Amino acid sequence: MKNILGREVPEFIEGYGKVTQYNGYLANTTGVMKKDYTFKTVTHKDSKLEKDLSKLMDKLPLRDGMAISFHHHLRNGDYVLNLVMAEIAKRGYKDITLVASSIFPCHKPLVEYMEKGIVTQIYAGYMSGPVAQAISEGKLQKPAVMHTHGGRARIMETGEVEVDIAFVAAPTSDEYGNINGVDGKSACGSLGYAHSDVENAKVVVAITDNLVPFPNTTIEINQTLIDYVLVVDAIGDPKGIVSGTTQITKNPIGLKVADLTAKFIEQSGYLKEGMSFQTGAGGISLAVAAEVKKLMKEKEIVGSFAAGGITGYIVDMFKEGLFKALFDVQCFDLDAIKSAKENAKHLKMSASMYANANNKGSVVNKLDIVILGATEMDTNFNVNVTTGSDGVIMGGSGGHSDTAAGAKLCIIVSQLVNARISVVKDRITTVTTPGETVDVLVTERGIAINPLRKDLIEKFKNSNLPIKTIEELKEIAESMTGKEQPIKFEDRIVAVVQYRDGSVVDVVRQIKK
Amino acid sequence: MKNILGREVPEFIEGYGKVTQYNGYLANTTGVMKKDYTFKTVTHKDSKLEKDLSKLMDKLPLRDGMAISFHHHLRNGDYVLNLVMAEIAKRGYKDITLVASSIFPCHKPLVEYMEKGIVTQIYAGYMSGPVAQAISEGKLQKPAVMHTHGGRARIMETGEVEVDIAFVAAPTSDEYGNINGVDGKSACGSLGYAHSDVENAKVVVAITDNLVPFPNTTIEINQTLIDYVLVVDAIGDPKGIVSGTTQITKNPIGLKVADLTAKFIEQSGYLKEGMSFQTGAGGISLAVAAEVKKLMKEKEIVGSFAAGGITGYIVDMFKEGLFKALFDVQCFDLDAIKSAKENAKHLKMSASMYANANNKGSVVNKLDIVILGATEMDTNFNVNVTTGSDGVIMGGSGGHSDTAAGAKLCIIVSQLVNARISVVKDRITTVTTPGETVDVLVTERGIAINPLRKDLIEKFKNSNLPIKTIEELKEIAESMTGKEQPIKFEDRIVAVVQYRDGSVVDVVRQIKK
Repeated sequence: MKNILGREVPEFIEGYGKVTQYNGYLANTTGVMKKDYTFKTVTHKDSKLEKDLSKLMDKLPLRDGMAISFHHHLRNGDYVLNLVMAEIAKRGYKDITLVASSIFPCHKPLVEYMEKGIVTQIYAGYMSGPVAQAISEGKLQKPAVMHTHGGRARIMETGEVEVDIAFVAAPTSDEYGNINGVDGKSACGSLGYAHSDVENAKVVVAITDNLVPFPNTTIEINQTLIDYVLVVDAIGDPKGIVSGTTQITKNPIGLKVADLTAKFIEQSGYLKEGMSFQTGAGGISLAVAAEVKKLMKEKEIVGSFAAGGITGYIVDMFKEGLFKALFDVQCFDLDAIKSAKENAKHLKMSASMYANANNKGSVVNKLDIVILGATEMDTNFNVNVTTGSDGVIMGGSGGHSDTAAGAKLCIIVSQLVNARISVVKDRITTVTTPGETVDVLVTERGIAINPLRKDLIEKFKNSNLPIKTIEELKEIAESMTGKEQPIKFEDRIVAVVQYRDGSVVDVVRQIKK
Repeated sequence: MKNILGREVPEFIEGYGKVTQYNGYLANTTGVMKKDYTFKTVTHKDSKLEKDLSKLMDKLPLRDGMAISFHHHLRNGDYVLNLVMAEIAKRGYKDITLVASSIFPCHKPLVEYMEKGIVTQIYAGYMSGPVAQAISEGKLQKPAVMHTHGGRARIMETGEVEVDIAFVAAPTSDEYGNINGVDGKSACGSLGYAHSDVENAKVVVAITDNLVPFPNTTIEINQTLIDYVLVVDAIGDPKGIVSGTTQITKNPIGLKVADLTAKFIEQSGYLKEGMSFQTGAGGISLAVAAEVKKLMKEKEIVGSFAAGGITGYIVDMFKEGLFKALFDVQCFDLDAIKSAKENAKHLKMSASMYANANNKGSVVNKLDIVILGATEMDTNFNVNVTTGSDGVIMGGSGGHSDTAAGAKLCIIVSQLVNARISVVKDRITTVTTPGETVDVLVTERGIAINPLRKDLIEKFKNSNLPIKTIEELKEIAESMTGKEQPIKFEDRIVAVVQYRDGSVVDVVRQIKK
């Protein structure tokens, strides 16, 4: 069974269930809001505060087969997931579904829990490191579900995944669970991905290492959404919370790509008063931001907002008055965290507000321009950011598919050839983001416009930029790399790539050793 | 059938249904979260904006028997409820349930809609004026349900009332429904009561007279909760939005009550570092605030927070550093609105966060002291703020029962005798707030402590204050007023007084003409 993207996706996947095939990026426009659970109300006689993990665990409705959730704002510095899982493993629970917004190398202990059948199912929007490797090797009992950042909000709101207990790392909290991410030694900024958890899980535990007197006076998530507050020594390692990725590339090829991208944006007509903009934290993307900043200042353009994961580069643009507001779902560096604390117009947003395709309107719908990366792209502009050139999971959509679908101009920036591997291929390993939502590929060797964007092709007909077809780019690359050998996989499906609306765009199969 | 408060409440009430009898203020500690509806998602191709009420109405799922909701932040200056209801009436719909957080004299047109069977059921936390009068006269087909402010959040979260369409007056909005109450010509401050509507109604319409470019950079309620944005010329009359009640009493008897109250608080042990405080906007309550302010400054006490409907007096205390934060569910005057806009620690809270008895912990649970009024009180400290001395509805709990239940010290302040009517009676017309949650009555003739508060009685055994029993106060009053004639009612139940947990404390019957 091939879906409309030409990917072989069965109608039913063991451990996942019946598949809704991807049928176009706007095929599903039904919003569903479904909740049905009871809980113990917190009266004026009750306390939520607990200082001992084990005592807290005694109070929770732990059981085999439960679903528990975590957010990833502490990134590769997160202690919370490992802390909680160690206690659950010690207590002998099995068959747990882990609903983690993303998985990082620091979550390596999960590999053992997968091997022992303690964790048998994982939902995540992004995963890298040993857990991703182990999943590709077939160590997880059921297929992992790789959703988008907006898709995670959707599956929780619709009740498709019912989380029994959410464990929420809280850089600052009072005893009643008024929490924020901008204060405390483990500050991480916006808590955007945690909102779905606290709004939809049946029981919610805030875990903090910075307990402040009631009331906490900066509140991103409030007390009505929290059942318990657990105080621990440390929720994370500050060195890992802020990752080291937010540097402009120094690679001349990357800078060339950024320069071409900025020129393309300038000529596209989207660089104008009131424009909105998003870029990732990759080196080329940041270089594009630097170029766009220059152009906006030259032309005295003031944009409406920048969105997404926020970096210091975007904060600088905001501070210089180039954007009226920032919509922040997660902070990538210390400057972003500082700004999230200090600037009233540095607005925190939930993952649903950011990117949910099936709510009453997300911020990505209002995006003019988004700059995204790619591991691979095929000639239909389908993009892979899920698996690497070895076929192993090393990423995932995150907000990739969400912003691509929402933005008026979605530009993929990439070196055409890197380490003798071409980004453009006849067939990519995994489809993460459907080509119909991707408008342009910019490489150092030329720019390809998606034929679906007739308006852009017309506009750039006489451009001085190196406009080429995607096939031409592929040929240029192949002349440098030769034809690549296809990767060999086992039949077994180890991950399901869910589109933002809940349909399935592709599956990832077990790698052949 | 008499309930534990001695009130005659049937087990079943026509037009209301099966009654859960009041059985103690902490009898129901089960939280329920229930939603199940679908909606049309808003994609990047859709617009929410509408500039014509009639065209908007064409898009809404209007039907006979629907439930529609409104908030009361525009108070007696509100245009929105009348505007919408006129259009619905014009279209001939019948049997509508109106879920309005409060009803004011400006909503007089509802009387005609009640008479015509257009509106057959009303839920409200407070009502005064012609609509309240008409309900007391039996003009509403089904009994009105008079809930508390926190109870309104509860009935929406549990799905006991499913609102089909919420119409939300929005002093400022962008085209995507990011709204706030602090900007614009119809600014009203916090939008606390609107949160339940937008979070739980199936369809939500924001109605604004101040459309700003996307994104609105001050957001109290965000775009994910709004289906449509309707722009109109004016949502309210600023003169009515801010009511004229927020003045300290000049009446010497009232000032005497306030003085005694402050002294009682001082000696009670609750006036201390970190204390929290709430007072209403009545003249005596404000006079108490002024006295408490003096005491806090004298003793160099810094409180944690003040909560509730916020007035300029409370804002002044906050600005002078007497409280670390304000929790604001609604603003009563212009100074409060200004502060809600300018001060980051002037925190807006939803009605659920404020006062819902059946959530994961409300702010009233954290209150130390609350100062409340009363129309009548019986010798069991049960309080009536629902009906007047003529038996006609002229108020309702609002946050009265909620704060009384949550606060450590609930003080009722009242003149003992006013216009030849005693506040203390053998039998009060209606029970709004159960006596077990009321600690003290302070009058100009003496202070009565609820016998349930043995600790307070002990503490004030040797006080220099005029401590009396409630029976003594009643006798003093009766010696001045004589015995009152009981009010005569018809049998028909015109309103059900719902306690915050959904049980019924009392019913209001039709007045005899």
